[in-house]
Amino acid sequence: MKAAAGTSTDATLLSPEELHARLRQVGEERYHHRHPFHVMMHEGQLSRGQLQAWALNRYYYQSRIPIKDAIILSRSEDAEFRRAWRKRVVDHDGDATHEGGIERWIKLAEATGLDRERVLRGAEVLPATHYAVDAYLELVRGRTFLEAVASSLTELFSRDLIALRMDRLRQHYPWLSGGLDYFTARLDQAPEDARFASQWVIEHAHTRAEQELAIAALRAKCDILWAQLDALYFAYVQPGWPPPGAFRIEES
Amino acid sequence: MKAAAGTSTDATLLSPEELHARLRQVGEERYHHRHPFHVMMHEGQLSRGQLQAWALNRYYYQSRIPIKDAIILSRSEDAEFRRAWRKRVVDHDGDATHEGGIERWIKLAEATGLDRERVLRGAEVLPATHYAVDAYLELVRGRTFLEAVASSLTELFSRDLIALRMDRLRQHYPWLSGGLDYFTARLDQAPEDARFASQWVIEHAHTRAEQELAIAALRAKCDILWAQLDALYFAYVQPGWPPPGAFRIEES
Repeated sequence: MKAAAGTSTDATLLSPEELHARLRQVGEERYHHRHPFHVMMHEGQLSRGQLQAWALNRYYYQSRIPIKDAIILSRSEDAEFRRAWRKRVVDHDGDATHEGGIERWIKLAEATGLDRERVLRGAEVLPATHYAVDAYLELVRGRTFLEAVASSLTELFSRDLIALRMDRLRQHYPWLSGGLDYFTARLDQAPEDARFASQWVIEHAHTRAEQELAIAALRAKCDILWAQLDALYFAYVQPGWPPPGAFRIEES
Repeated sequence: MKAAAGTSTDATLLSPEELHARLRQVGEERYHHRHPFHVMMHEGQLSRGQLQAWALNRYYYQSRIPIKDAIILSRSEDAEFRRAWRKRVVDHDGDATHEGGIERWIKLAEATGLDRERVLRGAEVLPATHYAVDAYLELVRGRTFLEAVASSLTELFSRDLIALRMDRLRQHYPWLSGGLDYFTARLDQAPEDARFASQWVIEHAHTRAEQELAIAALRAKCDILWAQLDALYFAYVQPGWPPPGAFRIEES
């Protein structure tokens, strides 16, 4: 099979605009805004139990984000980079005066009707969620530093998705409206983070081969987000089955 | 939530028979012989395309088995253990006079109608397969040595499944019959490996806490096998969707 146009390793360096366009194209094709689980969410077709399964599983992802960012911090020898990237850890873990994204996500999960301790314990998270999220940690730990940074670029696409989601959650699930602070904060944080990271990637991908590695890392990250929704959809939407021990939706 | 009887951490050491029974119980509840994808396979309900998806994805698992065993080898300081465990690497990679299990699996994949190069390239393997298999490598790399060895104990249950499978594949998919050498070899290899590993685990789990860790490692391995079939089922059996770039079944 020939490499598709989108995975060409042609030796010509892409211009910043071309690289940016290629990164955007990955988002168009592979970002999880297209996933049927999100489509159902935005159309108001998910039950409260399905939203609980989503909040509970995605908590595992959220809880690993500052760890992921600390791994990236630990790999940089540039204090300026570290000072910029450090913000992400603070955004998620909070500080003396602000609660962080993880706490806000717990409040969202509570708004779905889940008990905080149950969310924190995480015993009912799908194994497939663990595998996908842990693959993200492995990516930022094991690939080149450029790829680790590039994998964060899904944030280029997240503002639009979050804005749509907040609108639709309020419309279809008004009982969730008190739990949306996480998304409110991300509306500003994500684009700011994406600007820094995309600028950094464009400046530090010096060869076409490095540019292609950065594009592939973003694709890999999209796969990781997509796989988490696949696992949710098939365990809780289709007449599938959560594996032994995983969260089960209570009949109401 | 109280710990279920099966996850008690009661401090009383289990007898060898009790530990063996607990391990067997994990297999009864969680081994992938119960998975609907296997049930369909054994009832002759899978199409050739679905069997191709299975062979192609499981090739990634097969290709990582000797790497997994080499990690375990690398963690043992006991030459006697290493001499015993080394057999597994040979079984899968082959030697000057015998083809190994990986080559036999490729032949099975070819018998489904797939091109060898396509299988080896692995570009169409589901991301969820990668994540689950890589979680197995991470388990044997990162947990205690006892847990790494105990995770192999799914082999306690594999002979019965393989014997059933060979019978049913011959019955329902006679065109596959020429590709079953992998399973023929495993009929003897797996029980031999399981005897050594279960004996070793029973002798080296000195406390109840260690026994529980061994049981939990076996459960974790069952989750890894199960998740691989979930990914296949939902991408290729239910009216689901393989993610962008994954293997697609050709209309025939």
